[in-house]
Amino acid sequence: MPQSDTVNRRFLLAARPQGLPTAQDFRLDQAAVPVPAEGQVLLRTAYLSLDPYMRTLMEEGGTSYAPGVTLGAPMIGGTVSRVVASRHPQFQVGELVLANAGWQDYALSDGQDLTALGAMAQPSRALGGLGMPAFTAYVGLLDIGQPRPGETVVVAAATGAVGSVVGQIAKLKGARVVGIAGGADKCRYAVETLGFDVCLDRHDPQWAGQLAAACADGIDVYFENVGGEVFDAVLPLLNLGARVPVCGHIADYNRQSLPAGPNRLQLLMATVLQQRIRMQGFIILDHYADRFEAFRRDMGEWIDAGRVIVREDVIDGLENAPEAFIGLLEGRNFGKLVVRVSED
Amino acid sequence: MPQSDTVNRRFLLAARPQGLPTAQDFRLDQAAVPVPAEGQVLLRTAYLSLDPYMRTLMEEGGTSYAPGVTLGAPMIGGTVSRVVASRHPQFQVGELVLANAGWQDYALSDGQDLTALGAMAQPSRALGGLGMPAFTAYVGLLDIGQPRPGETVVVAAATGAVGSVVGQIAKLKGARVVGIAGGADKCRYAVETLGFDVCLDRHDPQWAGQLAAACADGIDVYFENVGGEVFDAVLPLLNLGARVPVCGHIADYNRQSLPAGPNRLQLLMATVLQQRIRMQGFIILDHYADRFEAFRRDMGEWIDAGRVIVREDVIDGLENAPEAFIGLLEGRNFGKLVVRVSED
Repeated sequence: MPQSDTVNRRFLLAARPQGLPTAQDFRLDQAAVPVPAEGQVLLRTAYLSLDPYMRTLMEEGGTSYAPGVTLGAPMIGGTVSRVVASRHPQFQVGELVLANAGWQDYALSDGQDLTALGAMAQPSRALGGLGMPAFTAYVGLLDIGQPRPGETVVVAAATGAVGSVVGQIAKLKGARVVGIAGGADKCRYAVETLGFDVCLDRHDPQWAGQLAAACADGIDVYFENVGGEVFDAVLPLLNLGARVPVCGHIADYNRQSLPAGPNRLQLLMATVLQQRIRMQGFIILDHYADRFEAFRRDMGEWIDAGRVIVREDVIDGLENAPEAFIGLLEGRNFGKLVVRVSED
Repeated sequence: MPQSDTVNRRFLLAARPQGLPTAQDFRLDQAAVPVPAEGQVLLRTAYLSLDPYMRTLMEEGGTSYAPGVTLGAPMIGGTVSRVVASRHPQFQVGELVLANAGWQDYALSDGQDLTALGAMAQPSRALGGLGMPAFTAYVGLLDIGQPRPGETVVVAAATGAVGSVVGQIAKLKGARVVGIAGGADKCRYAVETLGFDVCLDRHDPQWAGQLAAACADGIDVYFENVGGEVFDAVLPLLNLGARVPVCGHIADYNRQSLPAGPNRLQLLMATVLQQRIRMQGFIILDHYADRFEAFRRDMGEWIDAGRVIVREDVIDGLENAPEAFIGLLEGRNFGKLVVRVSED
């Protein structure tokens, strides 16, 4: 069924995934549309963002920065939502807001987690190119990675919501950019449209050797968002003084136990030492107060001027969210993945 | 035989070690005392420093910061040496200098790697408390670790040349310090003499649990100089925003292959991400130009005022260097290990 005025479709966490989530881990539930109390607004979801971090929230206990989703509760997620009823002085009916309404048609909010979007040509961008994923790229690359002109920056998931922006900002800063992506079409897009210098197809069995050849002068900044075999291939190529912002490691999110040996931890530590590497983890939630304004200003200018291109992979219909999310974890999306929940 | 005026005793690298070095990997050779050319000085070794990094230089290829020792060549090492002949305008016969004369009685130098020591009450300190190991502690702790008052700092090899200074400087900066050392006597010394808050005996099978108990509020700075099982025990205790200066990992230096699985690398990456950890390798050679002057001033004051205590483990006779060095790798030294080569 499509979005309705009287039913709130919601995806609940039905089971904690064993490895890659399956459709059975989500349950489509129908509830009444909730009614706002004094001080609350009722939100109707226009766009739902699907992002890799959601996989970590499906685990018991969640993460250090957010509790996990309770079994039987709605899946968590960022949204662009329209205010359809308001008992809050700051929000008017009809306004579009950035919200955390989750995988559902309707949600209540007391306004504290809402950001008014005003008039935006393409509101879904608030979830991607002008939102959390691009902000993650901006902070991780500029504040931690600190690329200098002529340096080599490597990023995987090169056409994804984060990686595509990392590479394009690195180019704006004068770096040489080598991407890694899954598929020839994505690689072509990274080079021809996004302006990467090189992009290697991870489906090619020779990709690791090609990476070494493409980084003959080594790697100065590796923006870590995938982990796994990409990190293994990058490690021996890191230059003296290389910086490694650690943003995520999607390759590991579906693992249920540590991988088999040998234990490569000491190899990492030896490399960190010998090459004087700075490796730093960051969670973007920590940086909104200090850096979001600068990001919005810079990124707005870059997008308007066509200097950064943002591609969206838009899925129609809330009912398709689980399959789209599973596809994201498998790398099947091409650009920032969003679900258009209403025709709004 | 003791040091003589006519024979240059030298320890040559006889074989590349398989794991822990043995006496057979070193060969005691006797050569003529070399004769300085114009612009050179002849140095006689007073004290030879023995340090863990030397193990890495025994490998083919050495490290990123120094070539390995060639098979059949003298072992490399920092020394306090006396100028016994000079054809160099800047150095006078009789002067004591900091040098890199290696594991031998005599060496030539063109002066470029020499530092005049002037009149020092205890010249061997130029190899320890006022030299490279304490400088390593100073830069790693203050510039990378950046402990704040009330934070918890953990350091292993707590009575060693580096760890003992890390802990004492951390105390001066108002941090709580938890040490790890091998043996009840060392632990008692760390607490009673060096002023550590706690020191755990790594020989106690319960030490990892004791570490968790001693760091009930987590670890804010872990100064990494040992690696191996200490790092494994520390990792789950690291706080949000923890800093990990990576100075060494002596536990791994004698390994000939990667340890068995599981592969803990992804566990490290997940922790770095979730806890927003900053991990940074450093090689002290990089920092002399910028930081050595500040170190000498601060450390000189702290030692003179009795605020930092430096213990030396002095071995008599060059002939005992290999055994002392093997003991260092096994943790048998107690304090900064130096060999008194001459009665000078």
